[in-house]
Amino acid sequence: MINVGIVGGTGYTGVELLRLLVQHPKVKIKAITSRSEAGMHVAELFTNLRGYLDLKFTDPTDAKLTKCYVIFFATPNGIAMQQAEPLLKAGVKIIDLAADFRIKDVAEWEKWYGMQHACPKLVAEAVYGLPEINRERVRNARLIANPGCYPTAVQLGFLPLIEAGVIDINHLIADVKSGVSGAGRKAEIHTLLAEAADNFKAYGVPGHRHLPEIRQGLSNIAKRSVGLTFVPHLVPMIRGIHATLYAKLTKQTDLQNLYEERYQNEAFVDVLPAGKHPETRSVRGSNICRIAVHQPQNGDTVVILSVTDNLVKGAAGQAIQNMNIMFGLAETLGIRQIPLLP
Amino acid sequence: MINVGIVGGTGYTGVELLRLLVQHPKVKIKAITSRSEAGMHVAELFTNLRGYLDLKFTDPTDAKLTKCYVIFFATPNGIAMQQAEPLLKAGVKIIDLAADFRIKDVAEWEKWYGMQHACPKLVAEAVYGLPEINRERVRNARLIANPGCYPTAVQLGFLPLIEAGVIDINHLIADVKSGVSGAGRKAEIHTLLAEAADNFKAYGVPGHRHLPEIRQGLSNIAKRSVGLTFVPHLVPMIRGIHATLYAKLTKQTDLQNLYEERYQNEAFVDVLPAGKHPETRSVRGSNICRIAVHQPQNGDTVVILSVTDNLVKGAAGQAIQNMNIMFGLAETLGIRQIPLLP
Amino acid sequence: MINVGIVGGTGYTGVELLRLLVQHPKVKIKAITSRSEAGMHVAELFTNLRGYLDLKFTDPTDAKLTKCYVIFFATPNGIAMQQAEPLLKAGVKIIDLAADFRIKDVAEWEKWYGMQHACPKLVAEAVYGLPEINRERVRNARLIANPGCYPTAVQLGFLPLIEAGVIDINHLIADVKSGVSGAGRKAEIHTLLAEAADNFKAYGVPGHRHLPEIRQGLSNIAKRSVGLTFVPHLVPMIRGIHATLYAKLTKQTDLQNLYEERYQNEAFVDVLPAGKHPETRSVRGSNICRIAVHQPQNGDTVVILSVTDNLVKGAAGQAIQNMNIMFGLAETLGIRQIPLLP
Amino acid sequence: MINVGIVGGTGYTGVELLRLLVQHPKVKIKAITSRSEAGMHVAELFTNLRGYLDLKFTDPTDAKLTKCYVIFFATPNGIAMQQAEPLLKAGVKIIDLAADFRIKDVAEWEKWYGMQHACPKLVAEAVYGLPEINRERVRNARLIANPGCYPTAVQLGFLPLIEAGVIDINHLIADVKSGVSGAGRKAEIHTLLAEAADNFKAYGVPGHRHLPEIRQGLSNIAKRSVGLTFVPHLVPMIRGIHATLYAKLTKQTDLQNLYEERYQNEAFVDVLPAGKHPETRSVRGSNICRIAVHQPQNGDTVVILSVTDNLVKGAAGQAIQNMNIMFGLAETLGIRQIPLLP
Repeated sequence: MINVGIVGGTGYTGVELLRLLVQHPKVKIKAITSRSEAGMHVAELFTNLRGYLDLKFTDPTDAKLTKCYVIFFATPNGIAMQQAEPLLKAGVKIIDLAADFRIKDVAEWEKWYGMQHACPKLVAEAVYGLPEINRERVRNARLIANPGCYPTAVQLGFLPLIEAGVIDINHLIADVKSGVSGAGRKAEIHTLLAEAADNFKAYGVPGHRHLPEIRQGLSNIAKRSVGLTFVPHLVPMIRGIHATLYAKLTKQTDLQNLYEERYQNEAFVDVLPAGKHPETRSVRGSNICRIAVHQPQNGDTVVILSVTDNLVKGAAGQAIQNMNIMFGLAETLGIRQIPLLP
Repeated sequence: MINVGIVGGTGYTGVELLRLLVQHPKVKIKAITSRSEAGMHVAELFTNLRGYLDLKFTDPTDAKLTKCYVIFFATPNGIAMQQAEPLLKAGVKIIDLAADFRIKDVAEWEKWYGMQHACPKLVAEAVYGLPEINRERVRNARLIANPGCYPTAVQLGFLPLIEAGVIDINHLIADVKSGVSGAGRKAEIHTLLAEAADNFKAYGVPGHRHLPEIRQGLSNIAKRSVGLTFVPHLVPMIRGIHATLYAKLTKQTDLQNLYEERYQNEAFVDVLPAGKHPETRSVRGSNICRIAVHQPQNGDTVVILSVTDNLVKGAAGQAIQNMNIMFGLAETLGIRQIPLLP
Repeated sequence: MINVGIVGGTGYTGVELLRLLVQHPKVKIKAITSRSEAGMHVAELFTNLRGYLDLKFTDPTDAKLTKCYVIFFATPNGIAMQQAEPLLKAGVKIIDLAADFRIKDVAEWEKWYGMQHACPKLVAEAVYGLPEINRERVRNARLIANPGCYPTAVQLGFLPLIEAGVIDINHLIADVKSGVSGAGRKAEIHTLLAEAADNFKAYGVPGHRHLPEIRQGLSNIAKRSVGLTFVPHLVPMIRGIHATLYAKLTKQTDLQNLYEERYQNEAFVDVLPAGKHPETRSVRGSNICRIAVHQPQNGDTVVILSVTDNLVKGAAGQAIQNMNIMFGLAETLGIRQIPLLP
Repeated sequence: MINVGIVGGTGYTGVELLRLLVQHPKVKIKAITSRSEAGMHVAELFTNLRGYLDLKFTDPTDAKLTKCYVIFFATPNGIAMQQAEPLLKAGVKIIDLAADFRIKDVAEWEKWYGMQHACPKLVAEAVYGLPEINRERVRNARLIANPGCYPTAVQLGFLPLIEAGVIDINHLIADVKSGVSGAGRKAEIHTLLAEAADNFKAYGVPGHRHLPEIRQGLSNIAKRSVGLTFVPHLVPMIRGIHATLYAKLTKQTDLQNLYEERYQNEAFVDVLPAGKHPETRSVRGSNICRIAVHQPQNGDTVVILSVTDNLVKGAAGQAIQNMNIMFGLAETLGIRQIPLLP
């Protein structure tokens, strides 16, 4: 059994990690920390866990995290970078679900995240945990930078096109829509039901923190810098991300076949039959990314539709997928839940 | 492995049966029938099942249902009563998720359901599949009348009070609220999102088909006829039932203790600590019924709050719970999914 | 033209007052105050008002409120009671949309609202602004305690039954459901879309602040103390209140006729034809209360269904209705908007 | 007073026409037809109208439509084209809210709409009723083809850029999101609340009927054929359209100024200040289109955000705007309702 700890477990990625880890046959949850809720039963805060998890939140200073084999950081940005080093030294592996280790260019990171990086040297070591691209490096990593929710859906969507070199990578467009849980479990006015329900809007068009992360990922695939316009939107739903991706084709190719081949061995990427449209509920609660490929009116614009559950493949599920790889388990172990529909 | 068949699998109870049965370690799904969709892959209709179930809908006439050990009828009312007899004769057990065998008084049934009963003699034999009341009879049943969604939440809520004889059973009130999936997967105007979202209403106040079913169940517990006012409401959500139950106390008693004792050995009934309020999402996708007991201002009115997922404990989950009991399996096998929250 | 001021205009009752007052033919909005947003254009915060209102939030200390003929307090509880006296002395009329002057028993008020009352003598003078009951007293009032949202729907629902003396008033039950805007425009976790959507729950069953207000109102009608169980619920919708009211009939009477007669001259109370069920969207954005009367199975329990828009008839619309009466205008002036459906 | 008739008033554009026309100071509604609901009070079907409209649905054959000055067709596609000619001959003006007269190329129309056009010669005469482009021609029209909901939001969004000739018109992208009421008041499974809530999907990517309409409109502006990729999506909300438009800049220009100047005299187009993001609820129930202009990271891709209420500016409101122009009334008469927020 793998002893795991969760730091900062009172948000949505925290409760989702718990839902999945409780069901994982090779995991023992040793500690979950929260400064504000220390002493409270986890199932009192997250009532879905009543009867499934008998654990209290621990104050971070009391939690014996170094006894864990792996720690998930489900904290706000800027926490993991302060605590990672001693844990790694103690032989603990780390999977950071926040953004601290995602951007290799530290100056760029500091610009977008508005703080000084506490541990730049670990940034270089950290492995970007998108298994469909980085599986071998994940296997041997001590420190995983778990991808953001938007970046997962967008990168998996563009990946085959860029690898195949069949599109103009200077003018990529990612029009992406997210459910409100993507904003986290934070007391804020703009995500109140009375504000966000029966409503739709774009936000962050001048610049969003996931832009440099996606750009870095796509540029790594392309092996040169890509041009990307990224527009996130808020959808009045709880979970789900839908990326609608546009690119100009520079070479005719069998797009359907390209995607099916690229992902034929990926357990968590499902390429739909030609002509279909994925919907976010078809992956609700699951670690699957479903993708459809369109070339409307046989023109020179390709349209990719890519959906994920932002809390699973976009966060907690992918983190466990990475853990499975790091510990030599079957990659799908414990994260094969069937999506909940309707 | 238990070979199971599903008759009429294109509705919400059908897809929910599939989601749960696919994950059940002792079940093999042999057939799922649909006249209208025969030949179509199930996962094409229910996209959440892509990658989990490789099965096509079969025409009922082609399905070899008598090779199954148990058949679930996920059909509209009036179908199971026409097909049950030959199946039972062939040694197949039946769990009917519709209403055909729920009401013992056939004349009463015919009044509320507006059709003649095709098989009155099986009505007498059928066991009402609420395990928390009828577990022993379920164990030996050939034919289960699986309870309706409202009746499950209401009966589990009132049960300890009536058994203990501490309330006036002539004036019970059940104010119950249901998500829209309770209306089924049917093309109707009143359950369109544009009609039912951002809206709330009562319906069926003059009389609803679940009224005689609940009244029969409560009267059986009380061993005499109860008086019940039942008002169902439509909530702009997908899944979930919330019953708010009112009764006049005739005897002071420790209500919290009464409920905790009654349900202490029930795996699927969770009595919340005193003072709490259950919410429907705390059971979303799970077979649990959560109950809270209140006595506002220490007055003589008791208020019970009871929540379930109408598609699970209110339909497919309870059906599988019954199957587990009928086949001597652990009662919780395959239906211990953790609720999905948020 | 009536010069009006609004104190505390950054919440939902504030924006709703503005929407209605901007369209009111006899009103001039002179000032709207907000400590936190002073200097900001109102239409920047409430984007629906862009092009309709050219006004900035003013700091309360700068606003010349004594130049107004009437001030609406759209503030949290406990503010109006501190500012009312000097305004009244200056000849300004006051309509308080908060709870400061609603409960005549000051000790009771202080118990439920957890603070000392700053101005008990004005409590006695204040007129409870439910025009359907208190129209004549509203006409001559200087200070209006505008009713709460739940109390409006419940009192209008029970009123004819209690006046007619045909029910047992010792065991009234009000099972009431509210949209999330009833919780106000406040940064809180429990009303986030990701928490409150696709979910339903009761809250405050042990005791809610609107309980004493409703009990006082119903007792005034009955001319003796009533017994009331009040259970509020949170509905995943933005606006709307649905009260389901239960009482035991003590005398047979033509209930439909009773309601139609009682409300025949009321512009804002609509009694539906027998057998109908009102829905909250049928009053969305309007000052109407729609009511239906049921006596299921001709038993001795009467069921009243009463719906309002909590922000209009339950707050801002009713406040303007009171203003119209106080200033001798047609009672419906400026508040005859047609409900928005779908 | 203008005598108006509505043909086919049982859908969402029908009820929205009624809501607006009832409040219009210069309109008298003479007839509303429905074959299926003839004889029923309109307010029984559309309960928001109770107390505001005392009119029954009339059978089309009984309605004296030729006595009306103008007829609104709120019918499915293919009806108006069969009835227009005799009405026009009788001197009645026609505003068709369906698609019968929108596409000038009849063969193209027949391809997309799958039927033969009954009246091609009137197609040539019909004026496309987008007042911001065609105001003068609307003024003298007998027959208006009222634009579709998507086309309105997209054309108003692209208009200034194309007129100014500052973008590459061969690769326009319109990623557009619509509330579910856009699908109409029709009994269909895919728009049930239980299917469409808490979900997001694209549809019609291979081709949607609004594509040729938008392409025709933009090509008219450009005076040559444009290249357009149009991807519609379904949002789990009732009303609202959000168009996110992408184009490559070919010339640097002050985009904010371009939009403000182009629309400075338009009552129903609101250009937001630089840096803002419109939201659909900011136009809920109103005839306004709000637009924001972005040039992310000062790159060569311009992003336009354009929101409307699909039932108002996208249908009924625009139809009345056209009527006002045709009858020499103030263009804003009767359609200045303030958006409902929250």
